[in-house]
Amino acid sequence: MQIAFVVYPGMTALDAIGPYELLRSMPDSEVRFVAAAPGKVVTDSGVLALGASHSFDETPSPDIVLVPGGSNGTVGAMNDAALISWLQAVHPTTTWTTSVCSGALILAMAGLLKGVPATTHWVCQEVLGSMGAIPQPDKRIVHAGKIVTAAGVSAGIDLALWLIGEIHGVKQAEQAQLEIEYDPQPPYDAGHPSKVTPEMLAEVRGKLLADAQKPTVATTSW
Amino acid sequence: MQIAFVVYPGMTALDAIGPYELLRSMPDSEVRFVAAAPGKVVTDSGVLALGASHSFDETPSPDIVLVPGGSNGTVGAMNDAALISWLQAVHPTTTWTTSVCSGALILAMAGLLKGVPATTHWVCQEVLGSMGAIPQPDKRIVHAGKIVTAAGVSAGIDLALWLIGEIHGVKQAEQAQLEIEYDPQPPYDAGHPSKVTPEMLAEVRGKLLADAQKPTVATTSW
Repeated sequence: MQIAFVVYPGMTALDAIGPYELLRSMPDSEVRFVAAAPGKVVTDSGVLALGASHSFDETPSPDIVLVPGGSNGTVGAMNDAALISWLQAVHPTTTWTTSVCSGALILAMAGLLKGVPATTHWVCQEVLGSMGAIPQPDKRIVHAGKIVTAAGVSAGIDLALWLIGEIHGVKQAEQAQLEIEYDPQPPYDAGHPSKVTPEMLAEVRGKLLADAQKPTVATTSW
Repeated sequence: MQIAFVVYPGMTALDAIGPYELLRSMPDSEVRFVAAAPGKVVTDSGVLALGASHSFDETPSPDIVLVPGGSNGTVGAMNDAALISWLQAVHPTTTWTTSVCSGALILAMAGLLKGVPATTHWVCQEVLGSMGAIPQPDKRIVHAGKIVTAAGVSAGIDLALWLIGEIHGVKQAEQAQLEIEYDPQPPYDAGHPSKVTPEMLAEVRGKLLADAQKPTVATTSW
């Protein structure tokens, strides 16, 4: 089972790395990071670079595709013809096509979410709806046939755990969870819009929308 | 405030990337990924490469240091003289010295955990004790003065959230949590040894110990 994580400039690393650490423990699986060409990809922070291990051309028939979001890279990815064409080409033969965070907007841009219930980062729910999907803002994971979408950033970890259970059953999912000691104990409880004040929600929304306008500036000396 | 994430061959990416996605949202902070020299670092999967953005020499006085674990890279890091010397050199002037997962063994190797209460991945608790620390196997985060250690892999996310609260207060921590939508809803509940059968615990322990013996083989074509 080949699992392809899409990578692109300005992506949010945790969107992909969270699910990757779970999915790579599945038996008989091969993980790869795909882009138009192998090489360095600078993430949205500008200081963290990830490597694309394989090209789209080398990856014509992945079993699982995961598309991450990106605080300032999503729009670029939505307008990346090679990325969008590849998604359209491989989706018909995937077993699962998935996204985390604003990655859902990239699936929508590829035309894969028309009339499909889906979720995304809370700040992107309206845009997702305007692109033809049926937003599910209160759901952390939404599965609609073989399309599975997760809410913002950290929700990809829950998506991956769910997916292992679907593919290999409860025991394999539990083993993967134990391996990464995923027994979350957040010391605060503000991880969803319903849990914060309107003032905080407005403030964070403003920050995220401002971040989305900033170009990714590489600050890594490598 | 400069935040330095140590990177090394065979590390587990999520150990660093989870905390990074939270800590980088702190005001007036500068994040960097440090190694002996800037450049590509192949993680424990062999297929994911991260970039070290700065060298140890370029980073003589970080405010926060975070040392990740690695399923097959921890022993190599423990025996990496440049890494251990750098930890010993910078620790006296850090505000916080932290580890995730088996990264605690690397702090212990640097002599920083003698008589210090600390935690690590559940599979490493005994080794941690044998190195002079006081293991706290039931704690997800342990703070002892300026040293903060987290349990396995995903526990780094909780550590980072806690740290933001200590440094900037509740509001900043809650905003960071909302940004990455950290409202965990794992579909299974097997993330701690106390939550699984002895058979499953033995099976996963065996797998992890076998993984630790395997060298990191780079399979990325980049």
